[in-house]
Amino acid sequence: MPLDALVYPRFEGIPTFMRLPNITDAHALDIALVGVPFDGGTTFRTGARFGPRNIRVQSAMIRPYNPALNVNPFERKRIGDFGDLPVNPLSLEDSYARIEKGLWPILAAGATPVSVGGDHSITLPLLRAVAQKHGPLALVQIDAHSDTWSTYFGSHHSHGTIIRRGIEEGVLVRGAVLQVGIRGQVYGDNDFEFSRRNQIAWITAEEFHRKGLAAVEPKLAPLRGRPCYLTFDIDSVDPAFAPGTGTPQVGGLSSAQALELVRSLRGLRLVGADLVEVSPPYDTSEITSLLAANLLFEILCLLA
Amino acid sequence: MPLDALVYPRFEGIPTFMRLPNITDAHALDIALVGVPFDGGTTFRTGARFGPRNIRVQSAMIRPYNPALNVNPFERKRIGDFGDLPVNPLSLEDSYARIEKGLWPILAAGATPVSVGGDHSITLPLLRAVAQKHGPLALVQIDAHSDTWSTYFGSHHSHGTIIRRGIEEGVLVRGAVLQVGIRGQVYGDNDFEFSRRNQIAWITAEEFHRKGLAAVEPKLAPLRGRPCYLTFDIDSVDPAFAPGTGTPQVGGLSSAQALELVRSLRGLRLVGADLVEVSPPYDTSEITSLLAANLLFEILCLLA
Amino acid sequence: MPLDALVYPRFEGIPTFMRLPNITDAHALDIALVGVPFDGGTTFRTGARFGPRNIRVQSAMIRPYNPALNVNPFERKRIGDFGDLPVNPLSLEDSYARIEKGLWPILAAGATPVSVGGDHSITLPLLRAVAQKHGPLALVQIDAHSDTWSTYFGSHHSHGTIIRRGIEEGVLVRGAVLQVGIRGQVYGDNDFEFSRRNQIAWITAEEFHRKGLAAVEPKLAPLRGRPCYLTFDIDSVDPAFAPGTGTPQVGGLSSAQALELVRSLRGLRLVGADLVEVSPPYDTSEITSLLAANLLFEILCLLA
Amino acid sequence: MPLDALVYPRFEGIPTFMRLPNITDAHALDIALVGVPFDGGTTFRTGARFGPRNIRVQSAMIRPYNPALNVNPFERKRIGDFGDLPVNPLSLEDSYARIEKGLWPILAAGATPVSVGGDHSITLPLLRAVAQKHGPLALVQIDAHSDTWSTYFGSHHSHGTIIRRGIEEGVLVRGAVLQVGIRGQVYGDNDFEFSRRNQIAWITAEEFHRKGLAAVEPKLAPLRGRPCYLTFDIDSVDPAFAPGTGTPQVGGLSSAQALELVRSLRGLRLVGADLVEVSPPYDTSEITSLLAANLLFEILCLLA
Amino acid sequence: MPLDALVYPRFEGIPTFMRLPNITDAHALDIALVGVPFDGGTTFRTGARFGPRNIRVQSAMIRPYNPALNVNPFERKRIGDFGDLPVNPLSLEDSYARIEKGLWPILAAGATPVSVGGDHSITLPLLRAVAQKHGPLALVQIDAHSDTWSTYFGSHHSHGTIIRRGIEEGVLVRGAVLQVGIRGQVYGDNDFEFSRRNQIAWITAEEFHRKGLAAVEPKLAPLRGRPCYLTFDIDSVDPAFAPGTGTPQVGGLSSAQALELVRSLRGLRLVGADLVEVSPPYDTSEITSLLAANLLFEILCLLA
Amino acid sequence: MPLDALVYPRFEGIPTFMRLPNITDAHALDIALVGVPFDGGTTFRTGARFGPRNIRVQSAMIRPYNPALNVNPFERKRIGDFGDLPVNPLSLEDSYARIEKGLWPILAAGATPVSVGGDHSITLPLLRAVAQKHGPLALVQIDAHSDTWSTYFGSHHSHGTIIRRGIEEGVLVRGAVLQVGIRGQVYGDNDFEFSRRNQIAWITAEEFHRKGLAAVEPKLAPLRGRPCYLTFDIDSVDPAFAPGTGTPQVGGLSSAQALELVRSLRGLRLVGADLVEVSPPYDTSEITSLLAANLLFEILCLLA
Repeated sequence: MPLDALVYPRFEGIPTFMRLPNITDAHALDIALVGVPFDGGTTFRTGARFGPRNIRVQSAMIRPYNPALNVNPFERKRIGDFGDLPVNPLSLEDSYARIEKGLWPILAAGATPVSVGGDHSITLPLLRAVAQKHGPLALVQIDAHSDTWSTYFGSHHSHGTIIRRGIEEGVLVRGAVLQVGIRGQVYGDNDFEFSRRNQIAWITAEEFHRKGLAAVEPKLAPLRGRPCYLTFDIDSVDPAFAPGTGTPQVGGLSSAQALELVRSLRGLRLVGADLVEVSPPYDTSEITSLLAANLLFEILCLLA
Repeated sequence: MPLDALVYPRFEGIPTFMRLPNITDAHALDIALVGVPFDGGTTFRTGARFGPRNIRVQSAMIRPYNPALNVNPFERKRIGDFGDLPVNPLSLEDSYARIEKGLWPILAAGATPVSVGGDHSITLPLLRAVAQKHGPLALVQIDAHSDTWSTYFGSHHSHGTIIRRGIEEGVLVRGAVLQVGIRGQVYGDNDFEFSRRNQIAWITAEEFHRKGLAAVEPKLAPLRGRPCYLTFDIDSVDPAFAPGTGTPQVGGLSSAQALELVRSLRGLRLVGADLVEVSPPYDTSEITSLLAANLLFEILCLLA
Repeated sequence: MPLDALVYPRFEGIPTFMRLPNITDAHALDIALVGVPFDGGTTFRTGARFGPRNIRVQSAMIRPYNPALNVNPFERKRIGDFGDLPVNPLSLEDSYARIEKGLWPILAAGATPVSVGGDHSITLPLLRAVAQKHGPLALVQIDAHSDTWSTYFGSHHSHGTIIRRGIEEGVLVRGAVLQVGIRGQVYGDNDFEFSRRNQIAWITAEEFHRKGLAAVEPKLAPLRGRPCYLTFDIDSVDPAFAPGTGTPQVGGLSSAQALELVRSLRGLRLVGADLVEVSPPYDTSEITSLLAANLLFEILCLLA
Repeated sequence: MPLDALVYPRFEGIPTFMRLPNITDAHALDIALVGVPFDGGTTFRTGARFGPRNIRVQSAMIRPYNPALNVNPFERKRIGDFGDLPVNPLSLEDSYARIEKGLWPILAAGATPVSVGGDHSITLPLLRAVAQKHGPLALVQIDAHSDTWSTYFGSHHSHGTIIRRGIEEGVLVRGAVLQVGIRGQVYGDNDFEFSRRNQIAWITAEEFHRKGLAAVEPKLAPLRGRPCYLTFDIDSVDPAFAPGTGTPQVGGLSSAQALELVRSLRGLRLVGADLVEVSPPYDTSEITSLLAANLLFEILCLLA
Repeated sequence: MPLDALVYPRFEGIPTFMRLPNITDAHALDIALVGVPFDGGTTFRTGARFGPRNIRVQSAMIRPYNPALNVNPFERKRIGDFGDLPVNPLSLEDSYARIEKGLWPILAAGATPVSVGGDHSITLPLLRAVAQKHGPLALVQIDAHSDTWSTYFGSHHSHGTIIRRGIEEGVLVRGAVLQVGIRGQVYGDNDFEFSRRNQIAWITAEEFHRKGLAAVEPKLAPLRGRPCYLTFDIDSVDPAFAPGTGTPQVGGLSSAQALELVRSLRGLRLVGADLVEVSPPYDTSEITSLLAANLLFEILCLLA
Repeated sequence: MPLDALVYPRFEGIPTFMRLPNITDAHALDIALVGVPFDGGTTFRTGARFGPRNIRVQSAMIRPYNPALNVNPFERKRIGDFGDLPVNPLSLEDSYARIEKGLWPILAAGATPVSVGGDHSITLPLLRAVAQKHGPLALVQIDAHSDTWSTYFGSHHSHGTIIRRGIEEGVLVRGAVLQVGIRGQVYGDNDFEFSRRNQIAWITAEEFHRKGLAAVEPKLAPLRGRPCYLTFDIDSVDPAFAPGTGTPQVGGLSSAQALELVRSLRGLRLVGADLVEVSPPYDTSEITSLLAANLLFEILCLLA
């Protein structure tokens, strides 16, 4: 259980995720909150390597009971701060190997990993590890960008290529990938060609602003029943609510919309999740880290 | 009347609330804007002691006529900056005594106090003073938190206990308390037990996002006709619009929603009001103080 | 065409608008992006002189294809960064002369100017120049303020008087001026007298929040067919989304609303446009400049 | 006397200079602290119009007794906050007339003005007014720049031309002007030609770093005995100690050096002083305003 | 030993002081780094309650070997992060009791406490506890203020009264208290009366700027040999180097001077130390927390 | 020549280094200012990829004549902004190849490169290119860190290994490398073993604070006459003066010391230079970029 704020004020103590104990034996956990502080796959503003640290700090404000979903995840599940996976700030390839290997003890122990980035490039090794355990995965991706580029600067790996790689490698199931919040300029209409060809469904931010959850519900059907992974890129939210991110995109979701969107995923068979692209150097007043901490709590509630 | 911006530019002069004259004789006033710079009841981020100062500065941008309500409050009422009530930064109990006593000359002179915090703990002595004048009060509380804790660290007084104390002390009328904007995690479902038992009505932020003013209107009925107090905690607004506060909570109101909510309170018999929890150290670009100044102006329009 | 981000990362290179070539021969251009870094007409917070510079920097994030409107403006039109018009920071009058004269080569070459302020005072000399080329202009003004003051400190020119001057001078067509986003206090109801007398149509922010584009559509009719100018004051957007501005006004548009509003102007016969009042010193996390860059891109799409 | 911080905490009350009473009758004062919030003479970063406001706020930290000089100026002199002189943000010329005229009542009453800018352009009308009272003036100018340009953009008046104008107009005495802290690049060696021709003495920052007060003492001789004015441009101090200024120049004085330099001026016959170029929008953590408040206090000690 | 940065990058992991293990059994430690996040004794700007948290974060940059003193404290002593002492944010008195009691296990186990504030009021209960173990203490206080007030708002306890209380209570030895860095205005010369009467030695910042360590050396003699406590108030350093503090005072030490001053204390018999008044909300670029982390390291080197 | 600020104000125009023309033909240049926006070799805080962009912006404040050295470099040499070298944000190795190749046209044309980073890892490929032209190089390194690590995370290349690699590869001359400003903790005394073995001379910050230039002069002797490269790591300067950097180290040089140190290098036979590690996301008030621009100007003066 989180530290009791009536005994230890919220500004007190060594900052772990949600003031949970630091537990590095995954067998003692049902859900492992784990940091992945790698931002070497970033193409514009870096800084997401400090995401886990700052989200830990802001998560001190989380209280345990969710009245919107009527659940206290800490009562239902054993949840702890597993610490950070080791990464290599000088090499994307080596970091990919370390992340995939680092996640394995959690999966092997039967715990569910909820990872905190880091930039979006970390999601590919996380997907690889989870798919090794659970088989090919359905995916809900809440994001401003589709991340389906082929290559960037000759590299197959970056924070903009993970979905294409995931489909190509077979860790994601064709026809069971849903993207919500897509918006902004792209290089051309053929940027969507890969998505069309591979039956990736998407809901633009504009459509979500108009229709709300009604746009999402029908498109969740192909994902239901399958082992499903949730990846939440904080840039799906508007820069007013989440300024601290690497490639901010205007016209995004409000924090209230983001919360209700995550809550609407109840019923999916989630086997893993991550929240990425919080970049603290750009996070004035720390509101992005605070929102991220709340979204992580909502994800815990989905899992509980 | 406020200083004329066509003679003295808005960036000029000693900053009083809305550039009004500093008047310390309450008999010359119908409405007294008064600062209460106490933040010793805060459980997380402090800084609200600087609220009155920074809201004074930002209120230089307020012009006198409200086209949305078709009223110029400065023409209808004698309004002035009464200055700040004396507080003791080292003692909550002594500050409570000073605040209650400090407000009395305003009430005795028949003026209506509009107080600017400070943290939410100041509302209890303010309620006590106003109730001494007007009898038990109905209350509209616009807030992310219900502030109905029993104790905190053994203390009966903090920014999270004021409503419970107000009910228990009889300064608030059971059945005539309405809370709007409630959201976020709590410690358990029994956190709402006190509210249920004491007929506190509340509208969550989620409900307000869905239904808007339609959710509010019917619940105002029990308050009408009674002497009513309005307390506006700036954390009812989302951190994107009001980052400068002590316990920010995502998923909140927009500034437009906050304005329309205050305007919808026309018709209540307001005998006092406060606006609390603006914490300038966290107020990037000073947008929280600016919003607070505008909300104070809307409150003046309600009173006029 | 903008620099290719797959060859030159977005953080690289000398920052021009949208990474376009710097072209000072207007004959080589269909559309000229041009900076007008003057803020001597400002009555509260200055700093808009740095608007062009910072918007150039943030516009590095713009990609070329707009999926919402299905257009790549850089394929359809020759667009370049024309540089900045010369201004005199010590004299509004001299700057007005320089701006009007500086815009002329663009118009004479048959190119369409899209100007980046600077404060809103620059719009008058821009309108004068464009009207000299195209005759009296219809106007869409997206703004929190109507800018119809008569004088300010004895001066006929400031960022609050441009619309009155434009009407009086005949560069704007009576009955073909539409203002969207108007809100906030004014000095009295007679502030709207000039607008009523001169058939300026306006849609308040409150009305836009309630009705959306449905409020706008019917009021565009009198503008259609005429040569039309678009002026976008960034303070039309709420301070949460655009903190970096000189006279921020709460209760404004979201970034998503601003984008859909600009997109809804398709079909007007635009002969010029500007975006003004971005004040970088107040632009935490640079989200205002980023929004401005996106709005400029949407304007380019309207023109393409 | 300043408000007693043992009764009213420093964060309390309407912010006047040093928490002194606001007194607009100069006959009640020996020394008048007066704001001059004009920044229309600025050639790079503006914002000094907010200088008086923010220095008022930070001056709440000043206590009354100076142990370094063994003096309590508030015991020896009647000192008050005279408010701000009226300025016109749209016109340098009109502001010059207002400033000169606005200062006159202070001088006429026999009080000594200590003015708080505003940019450095305000010093010329202040000098004119003081010289009208006391005759041609000796000058100590603590500054990174010599401010002896001839014109800027065709204008004779800006924050870079005041010393040349003062000499030319005869309000400053040739041979009795001393500049300390000069540094940084100029346009050419002939930038110093005017100074040489007019017997302006100067001590560069480099020389002051090497020799300290020993460099200053001998050059004060020609100023002694004459009515003398002190103008302190905060950019004389290094940007590390005073980031909040319009044209910061690296290699400057430390705050300790600035304090000792002002204290070393004891014995001059000061008849007026100003402190200029504090630009709050760039003043992170408000350390520039705080330093300015302390320097103003030291100036009061010189006068007492 | 601190986490190896060649295996775990510095931005990785749950932030403890200097990346040391969190050890709550004092018998396993020679030196206990312990947080005391209380700021309820603050009279101006609060926020020091977040000091331990942010200093933990910045201390990730500390490497183990000090070439200036030729020592690796982690090789010589068992050092760990003891966590934070429990405090009560609503009550100074209760916090005093908790702090004194909370420190006792460290002292009882024979470990040396190095405490991290928190505001300076925490030093009194820390001194009480240490004196209970070691008897009356000599004291080196590096500070801008002498903290010898009698009372503040009727309270005997605040961050400005600790030294007077320590002398009065006998936990400090008359004649063996040395203050370095004192500067700034006071209320009158009699503010120093207590110090004179009680043989408190002090070196002003002005004297230290002139003479350097030569001013300190002779005044350390009476402290040598005795059990000695070191209290370092970060406001001894100039606001340019340490903006993040509650009552900043210009004219202070540079970071280089602060380091050499601490290093010059070798040879004292230190039995405890603290570093206080780091206020993160005002700490732009986090340089104050970084300096604090380095000063803590230098204190560890003194103890090793 | 730089743009004339009397015709185009400093806040105007597309920001090139020192407002020089963008010239990509090196034959037209004697000195090429060139950006190298790579920060993939960073081990703590990233962001130096934005260094060239922000230093360009701040360099608008540079005027052409240096009174301290009595030189106008723009009159003596043809100097231009060469733009940025292409880098690959995803690969250090590929970036190394691009940088070395990208610098070659400048060297081949006989121009002297003055490079602007980026993190310090860029210096190795720059040294390689310059040594290919001029043979093994003497080096002046102004830096807080010696950058002589062997490997980091298994990689031979990072911002901490460049000097060791330069010596090993023979691009630097044993016995002709001087480091100034070294300070802070290391991992152990054997961190200096490589330097001792390879006759790297160094002057610690502590020594420089005590002796000033007198410490430097004698150690320059072995460098004189040889082709010499100057690398200036901005973290040599104290965080108070240069907060915007990746691995800030307290106790560093002041800006005045940094300027005099660079000026003292007159007489060396400089064939290339760089300035690295400016990280804009941490650069409050932009004072680091401003200092960097001034240091670049001083380097130009050395070369002219």
